[in-house]
Parts: sequence; structure tokens; C-alpha cells
Amino acid sequence: MKVVAVREGEQTPTLMEKPRPEPAAGEALVRTLRVGVDGTDHEVLGGGHGGFPEGEDHLVLGHEAVGVVEDPNGTRFEAGDVVVPTVRRAPEGQEDNEFFARGEPDMAPSGQYQERGIVGAHGFMAEYFTSPGEYLVPLPPELTDIGFLVEPLSITEKALELSYASRSSFEWNPESAMVLGNGCLGLLTLGMFEHTEGIDRSYCLGRRDRPDPTVDIIEAIGATYVDSRETAVDELPDTVESMDLVYEATGYAPHAFQTIEALAPNGVGALLGIPGSWEFEIDGGALHEELVLHNKALIGSVNSHVRHFEGAIEDLQALPDWLIDDVITGVYGTDELDAAFDDSNTTIKTAVELSTR
Amino acid sequence: MKVVAVREGEQTPTLMEKPRPEPAAGEALVRTLRVGVDGTDHEVLGGGHGGFPEGEDHLVLGHEAVGVVEDPNGTRFEAGDVVVPTVRRAPEGQEDNEFFARGEPDMAPSGQYQERGIVGAHGFMAEYFTSPGEYLVPLPPELTDIGFLVEPLSITEKALELSYASRSSFEWNPESAMVLGNGCLGLLTLGMFEHTEGIDRSYCLGRRDRPDPTVDIIEAIGATYVDSRETAVDELPDTVESMDLVYEATGYAPHAFQTIEALAPNGVGALLGIPGSWEFEIDGGALHEELVLHNKALIGSVNSHVRHFEGAIEDLQALPDWLIDDVITGVYGTDELDAAFDDSNTTIKTAVELSTR
Repeated sequence: MKVVAVREGEQTPTLMEKPRPEPAAGEALVRTLRVGVDGTDHEVLGGGHGGFPEGEDHLVLGHEAVGVVEDPNGTRFEAGDVVVPTVRRAPEGQEDNEFFARGEPDMAPSGQYQERGIVGAHGFMAEYFTSPGEYLVPLPPELTDIGFLVEPLSITEKALELSYASRSSFEWNPESAMVLGNGCLGLLTLGMFEHTEGIDRSYCLGRRDRPDPTVDIIEAIGATYVDSRETAVDELPDTVESMDLVYEATGYAPHAFQTIEALAPNGVGALLGIPGSWEFEIDGGALHEELVLHNKALIGSVNSHVRHFEGAIEDLQALPDWLIDDVITGVYGTDELDAAFDDSNTTIKTAVELSTR
Repeated sequence: MKVVAVREGEQTPTLMEKPRPEPAAGEALVRTLRVGVDGTDHEVLGGGHGGFPEGEDHLVLGHEAVGVVEDPNGTRFEAGDVVVPTVRRAPEGQEDNEFFARGEPDMAPSGQYQERGIVGAHGFMAEYFTSPGEYLVPLPPELTDIGFLVEPLSITEKALELSYASRSSFEWNPESAMVLGNGCLGLLTLGMFEHTEGIDRSYCLGRRDRPDPTVDIIEAIGATYVDSRETAVDELPDTVESMDLVYEATGYAPHAFQTIEALAPNGVGALLGIPGSWEFEIDGGALHEELVLHNKALIGSVNSHVRHFEGAIEDLQALPDWLIDDVITGVYGTDELDAAFDDSNTTIKTAVELSTR
């Protein structure tokens, strides 16, 4: 079968041939339909994430997949069911790892998980993949074409779940919220603020000149675009307004700390970026004081699991069709990998199509 | 009546005479028994907190009080009931402020509250005080002598409530916890880790040479003393262990950020210090990444309200008598203010006694 992989020492995706996998006991065989491409894939290509599968000289890419069950192989599925796979798997020999045992692999620390298509395990950008049945989430068939958006939206579901939990011991009704970052996930999260989270006033931070398709989408959602070259994150309370909720999806480390100033009293900042080492100066005393005096919180969040995928499916049903259409800027065959992995300003979200339903 | 106050322009407490207050409608008159002295009082004396009551040239000190109802004045209390007052009050003209209206004054932002004995309103270090009935928490009479510990313990109750809430969307059973700071509240919180929170391994950070009474208490509790001059907070995972829970009570701003490194995966740092502006360098990229990749949280917490006082009363009943005895290093009359406000290494917790039951 065809797979899209990155070879050791290379930084671009390659089309390779591999044998079709055989499902082990408890695993279903899934025929892949579409697999989304995101920033993490570009980091994997750039060598920023670690880890080819043990003993392998390549990694099959892709962690945002939708497929159709080809062989249920005794799992709860029927042939033809449309499914979305979760990403984390227990490393060999650690199958009884407590986080997987209790259905919370998203809370496992480094070394206690592999991530398909990212670290230690082949991804889903292949004509077929196998997966334990419990890591396949059923998708309503009408969402098949956009099912590759479930995994990214599940990341927001998890981050918002943690953020809301952190504010659950008192009455908290967020009215203002900002997404830092205007990538696909930022835009979809902004859509959730408007359509599923009941946020009154939503904002999105970017650094793009108009005309720009992401700015158009931000405004069509009903949100306000804030140009980070004109307004720094810690200046928001003075120039725009303070935010009950900040969702950081830029990976720009100063944003994590400026968020403390941007928050309204009792607000929460959900952090999702993974920037790597970078030393800089902060007014740590003022930030510490501000966190305390106004009961603020910073919450880091990574990965997601089945209940977040289920929440994401509901979100996908609630988001307007035009938004989904506008963020998906291209779906490409395996003979168009350059376009699928394009990272320019005209690309928002792409997917690779491995087969059709 | 006698009151202990600080006059404008002065930095030491003074004994003054003031008229006994008359309870307004809905207020009880309370005869004060004891009032604790803490770091906030020293900050108030040093001018670090703001605000004399409007039009006044002095502030009656004291926010950690226990007293006996002298005149219930139509409130739910009976004369002779032992009570502990909460600290925050609505500023005049803001009585319908949403935070007070819903019983969450501890979540009110700056400008929407006064704090008795701290900012904008006279404290309890007076022979009598008045308070709305809903801000008086009944105390079991056997706790009368130590009732001035309820307010400080309520601060820990609130901080732990927020911290546990932030970890409530997944399974979290903290086994290791560290208090940063060996003041009275740090020691009592360490006692709670051991006696009410079910923490397996607890630690307390200080910077004291042995022999030292706080180090003796830490070890008698069954916790481990860590000298911050030998082990930096961000070195804890390598030299001691990583902490599921860190409770910061030093007000030393670098601790707020080093806590991110000290935490175990999925851990939470409760921040309580109020350090003021101080610029320094951090590896913000590594800290941001660490927060995200391991689902960590930083939670600021300030003040407390009735349910936290009620929790604190239960804590006080659960803590061993020897610990309470050892942290209270002196109870002094109003003619011994120098001793009551002593801040040396031999003092852990003092109180001023205004009258006896």
C-alpha cells in the first residue's frame, strides 16, 4: 500500500510502498480516507519532535485521520463504519501503564506514550491502518469529508475542559475570550467561542496584513482581529479589554507570560504551544502578584482522548458550514504532496486523501 | 475602648482609645478575645498595603480575630456565641456588587472590596467590633483560644479548593507535596498535608540553620526540611523528587516560576505570595513547554470566604494539639505590643489578647 512518510535525514514527505498491516487481536483494520496536515507535522518533518519507531529508518506521517472500517476483526464496529482514531498508544511492554489503564493516555508523562505519526509509532497517512477498537471513535457518516478536523478540535475540547475545571469552584461566566494565533485550530476555536461556548466578545490575535483570508474569517465569525504588531498581549486590558479566557496557540513563549496581564480577574489562560528553550526577561514580581491578587490561572494542556473526540464531533456539528469550508483550503491526492504540505499564508488547512468512501 | 492601630506616617502599632462601635441593623456587636498577627500586618505597618479608611488618619489593625457575641442585635447568634469574622466587606455604595451578592467576596477584583485591618476598613484589634451576621462564622467553644488561626487556615482551604478544582477533570491523587516557606501558615499547611489531605510525602522549603524551631516542627510533622540555600526549587526533581502539589507562601517571585519545573506531570502550583514588581530572566520557552507537555497548572489564590472558614475549623480540629501549641509562640496583652509584633526567628505565631471569655 501507499504511505506518506519522512525518511531519516530528510525533511520532506515521501511516498513509499509498505505492506498492508494485519490487525492483531482486538484491533480493527481501517481503510484511510483523509488525513489532515498541521503544524505538528511540519515540526516532525523539521526534526523538532523526536522519534522514529524502534528499528525503523522512516516514520509514516499523519495523526488527524478519518477512515472506514474494512475489517472489524471482532471489535464493536461493523465494516463500513466511519471512524476517527485517537493518537496516543502505550509503548510496547507498558500496556498496563496506569494512564492507559484508566483511559487517560492524554495525561501520561513523557516516556509513557507513543504518538502515532509524531513520536515512536507510525501515523495514519497510509492506505490502511490498524488500531485497537477502544481508540477508534465512531463518526456520523455525514461528517466523513471533514472528519480529519475531529482530532484538532479535540485538542481544544481538552484545553477548555481543563480551563473550565480550574474555575469550577466559584461562579464563572466568561464573556470575553481571545485566541492567540490565527492558524486553523485558532480559527475553529474562535468559531467555538461564538457557536458552542456562549462567549459574548471574542478576539483573535495575528500578525497579518489585510487583505488576508484568516482576517476575513475572523471577522465573518463575528470576532475582532487584533494585530500583535500594533497591540502587545499584555497591553490588551488598556487598549482592547481584559480577557476572561485566553487560548494560546502561537507557541511564542512570551505570550504564555503576557497572558497573565491580559486576563481579567479570575480569568484563565489555556496554553498549548511547545516552544522549546528561550531565555528572556519578565517582570516576574508583577506577574506573580497579578496571578495571586486576582485569582488567575495558567493551565497547560496537551493531547486529548476519547471523550474530547466525542465533544469535538458535537462541535463540528455546531460550527457553520461556511467556516469549515473556508478553513479547508485544499484536499490533495498522494501525488500532490507539495501542495498538501504547503505552509504559505494562503494555506489554512489541508488534507491528504488516501481513498474515497 | 482600647484599639491597636497604625497612624498615618508611622510604622509601629499604637494603643489608642476609640468609642465602642454601635451595631447597625443586621450587625452583631462582638467582644474581641484574641487577634492573630501575621506577615500582612507587618506589610500594613510598613505601608506595603494601601489604604486607611476614608477620611481617617489611622487604621485599626487585625484581620485574624476570634470573639464572643455581646449583642446579637437580631442576627442569628445568641449572646455568648464564639465567632470568627471574615475579612472582606463591600465598599460603601457597592453593597450590591455581584461578588458580595453571590457570597464570593474573595473573588472580587481590586476596588470592589475593602479588607478589615488591611485596606479601607478598620480591623478587629479592638475591644469590640461590629459585623454583619453573615460575615461571622460560629466556632465550637473548645476552639476559642486558637480561633485566631481560622482565618489563616481558611486561606489554605481556598487555595487548595482552587488547586484541586483545576485537577478535577482527570484522576489525580497527589502523593508528594511541598510548602515553600516555613512561616506559621506554611507549617499549618504542612500539617494539613499530613493530617487532612492524605499526602504521602511532604516537604517544606526554608532558609534556616539548625537548630531552629520551625525545622523541628517540620520534622515532628513527619515532613522533610529542604534548605533553599542548598537546593533550588527548580532542582527539586533531580535532588529530592518532583512534586504533585506546590504551595508557595514565600512571596519570592522566582519561586512562582521555578515551581513549574518542580512540579510532577499533571501537578499544580498554588501561588499565594504578593511580591510586587521585580524583573528577572527566566527560560520562558522551557517553562511554557513544560506547562503544556505535562498538563501542569499555576493557580493564584487570594482571600477566602465563609465555606473556607468552615473548612478551616474542621482542619483545626484535625491538626494535632502539639502542632498548634508549638506554632503559637506567644499571646500578649495590649501592653506588650513589642512582643506581639516581634518578627524575629524565634517567633512563629503571636496573638494579641483583648479580653478573656
